[in-house]
Amino acid sequence: MSATETLAAYVVNDDGTTIPADVWREASRAVLNYLGCAIGGSIEPALDIAIDTFTPFSGETTASVLGRRERFDPLHAALLNGIGSHVHEFDDTTPKNYIHPSIPVASALFAHASANAVSGRNFIHAFILGFEAESRIGNAVYPAHYDAGWHITSTAGVFGAAAAIGKLLGLSKRQMIWAFGLAATQSAGIREMFGSMAKSFQPGRAAQNGYTAALLARADFTAGEHALEGPRGFAAVTAVEYDLSKVSAGLGVDFDLRANAYKPYACGLVVHPAIDGCSQLHRTYQPDPETIVAVRLRVAPLVLDLCNQRELRRALQSKYSIYHAAAIGLVRGKGGLQEFTDEAIADPRLARIRQCTTAVADQSVGEDQVGIEVELAGGEVLSLFVEQSLGNVHRPLSDEQLEEKFRDQAVLALPSLQVDALIEQCWRLDSLQDAGALARTSVPGAGSNASPAAMR
Amino acid sequence: MSATETLAAYVVNDDGTTIPADVWREASRAVLNYLGCAIGGSIEPALDIAIDTFTPFSGETTASVLGRRERFDPLHAALLNGIGSHVHEFDDTTPKNYIHPSIPVASALFAHASANAVSGRNFIHAFILGFEAESRIGNAVYPAHYDAGWHITSTAGVFGAAAAIGKLLGLSKRQMIWAFGLAATQSAGIREMFGSMAKSFQPGRAAQNGYTAALLARADFTAGEHALEGPRGFAAVTAVEYDLSKVSAGLGVDFDLRANAYKPYACGLVVHPAIDGCSQLHRTYQPDPETIVAVRLRVAPLVLDLCNQRELRRALQSKYSIYHAAAIGLVRGKGGLQEFTDEAIADPRLARIRQCTTAVADQSVGEDQVGIEVELAGGEVLSLFVEQSLGNVHRPLSDEQLEEKFRDQAVLALPSLQVDALIEQCWRLDSLQDAGALARTSVPGAGSNASPAAMR
Repeated sequence: MSATETLAAYVVNDDGTTIPADVWREASRAVLNYLGCAIGGSIEPALDIAIDTFTPFSGETTASVLGRRERFDPLHAALLNGIGSHVHEFDDTTPKNYIHPSIPVASALFAHASANAVSGRNFIHAFILGFEAESRIGNAVYPAHYDAGWHITSTAGVFGAAAAIGKLLGLSKRQMIWAFGLAATQSAGIREMFGSMAKSFQPGRAAQNGYTAALLARADFTAGEHALEGPRGFAAVTAVEYDLSKVSAGLGVDFDLRANAYKPYACGLVVHPAIDGCSQLHRTYQPDPETIVAVRLRVAPLVLDLCNQRELRRALQSKYSIYHAAAIGLVRGKGGLQEFTDEAIADPRLARIRQCTTAVADQSVGEDQVGIEVELAGGEVLSLFVEQSLGNVHRPLSDEQLEEKFRDQAVLALPSLQVDALIEQCWRLDSLQDAGALARTSVPGAGSNASPAAMR
Repeated sequence: MSATETLAAYVVNDDGTTIPADVWREASRAVLNYLGCAIGGSIEPALDIAIDTFTPFSGETTASVLGRRERFDPLHAALLNGIGSHVHEFDDTTPKNYIHPSIPVASALFAHASANAVSGRNFIHAFILGFEAESRIGNAVYPAHYDAGWHITSTAGVFGAAAAIGKLLGLSKRQMIWAFGLAATQSAGIREMFGSMAKSFQPGRAAQNGYTAALLARADFTAGEHALEGPRGFAAVTAVEYDLSKVSAGLGVDFDLRANAYKPYACGLVVHPAIDGCSQLHRTYQPDPETIVAVRLRVAPLVLDLCNQRELRRALQSKYSIYHAAAIGLVRGKGGLQEFTDEAIADPRLARIRQCTTAVADQSVGEDQVGIEVELAGGEVLSLFVEQSLGNVHRPLSDEQLEEKFRDQAVLALPSLQVDALIEQCWRLDSLQDAGALARTSVPGAGSNASPAAMR
């Protein structure tokens, strides 16, 4: 069987009973992490503009947009969920292919579930299958595809959304093959858009387009049946080298979801080790920031290539400053959204630490590592070497850390009580009769419907 | 200035006064040809499925779909116009880049004009600019882009739709640059889908996506500002070789619209010379088909590679049969949509000519050429060599031939009187106060509003 047919058959036929418990659990963690990103990002101007622009074009407003009061048809809700969940760039990553995998899949699923009857179990099952389809297609074309300039989160993500929604719509194998064809037809998004609103538009559009592909396929709108492996198919057209055996190898046994990574800090990945290590020193020794006289870092050379900014004028710059990274770790012990605001860059305690921090490039330090020395006024030196940065696959965020991250994001849009209710509801998503309750509880003013009784 | 900025500045600043009269006239011809394709294709199942699927997702139904009674929001109308106008594969071609250029641009424009106040002159002006933007971007990446497997009609077409709608929306230069970025972000469509409904979906989606790009850009949704020339931009990502100087060379002076070609026959291009030549013999000598005992063709080798089918079981096969091509030319003197139906392949007069036709490959015969000998029962031999096939840029269809083609297509969906009114209205589109009248006259049952008074 071809790669396209093999994957379609798997998605259509899998009944979830052989998916291991740890994979189900990781799916809940990924959904929690996704949902926090979507709610936190819902306050951003990019989403305001998109909502204003698309309001006249929405069909019947049966669907919720995560974090927002405005309602849309499910296809637009998928797009808007995708923009909101990526705009802070705080979402998850599969390190082997650099896909931010949850956005396209979960954005479509939340939109669909908010407007249609979907059980929690079916929601998570579809999420797992969509995630796997997307990540395996990504594996097959990575790295040539990414290196060419494709934003692999959207180009592979559209297949994930098609698989997940197609599963919930009950497509036949032939229809799922067409859905993959219609996904391939719409696969798009280039890295040239990084740094603009168009970046978060891309995975949103992938969610919407994959959802559309599944709807059309269900109605027998035909497509080419070799979307992945055809001579003019997705792999051949978008990657100079590819290996489609990665789509099927270990299918149903090995799950990429197990290697999913969640960002602990709302900034560029390369400064994560410094925030991690400095936060550890903060927690362990609780040094008074006023007593810190020097911070000396040994970092991977890439860090100075990308993040050698000490003078910060705009909030965005702080996400790419190794000096700011050290400061927030030592002073605040965290790197949440609040640590990269205009308020944060103006904080005199942080500014002072940035000024007394130095960083040297060291070839022997890996990109997940950092060496830290903090010299105090009394002459004492606190030191630490981070071998594996928090959030990578060898040191994943704990459930509690994910919850803390979720709160940090979600309180931007929702009251604390509602945030707590969402966390509780998310952990038992697989037992909810109506997964859409989670989407509906994620909007401002849902308090009256967010009682535990209504959520079950 | 970069290619992106140069093109954006041209589209934004051009006031139309320096566009030569022949270009304006060719635009009317292209629009007439487009409109016939859209109305003729409106009866196809692909459009029925798409309309059923998208009905629940349409916003306020302010826009017309060409050839259909159903109404949609303008973005969906753009998509549906695009599916309908390409599904018969009877639309125009710019031979230097193999783009079918009118679909993405005109599909968006008709959708927009049906719902918004747009003068005929502004409609044609936007069409010319959109056509030029799309074709020049296509020139820059052709042939490497097409050879890689991209369906260049949709991948370049999305820029044309963005330019045309962006012009009507009055974007600033910076917004037009963003619109091109948002178009690049959505540029998609692969040749693997040829032969399925997904093929006509691609230029439809390009129309819708380009329109969306312009709407978002107007609202200051930002995008990367080097959509075309950036290191991860459209050209570098989708073509191993490209020449962006083709975007700006002769801009405002040379117009690709002048080299636009219209298909005279509703079938594969390679059998066009045979239909043309046999139709000429039919008109000149009016031979009784019963008296034809042998037809001998000398054809380009490619013809036998692609169209060597004598026994026809499905209507679609007849579009790729050199024997059927000779038969319809000699018996009917034309190759319209009716010549490639189940009825046509069952016509015993055509079947007899197919049986007595032979074709030999001859390296000296070009792909626009054919040698024909028709032997009659009395021993007489009619012969002709076609040097330039009708419809190519050296022997363009006359206005009357375009009208005949339009009628042949449009009568599938509309009554004859309405078809005549549309032709009359289309030729004077540039003087219409309301270009949307043309879209609204293109739907079944529009008769009561289609009086000459209402059209002005």
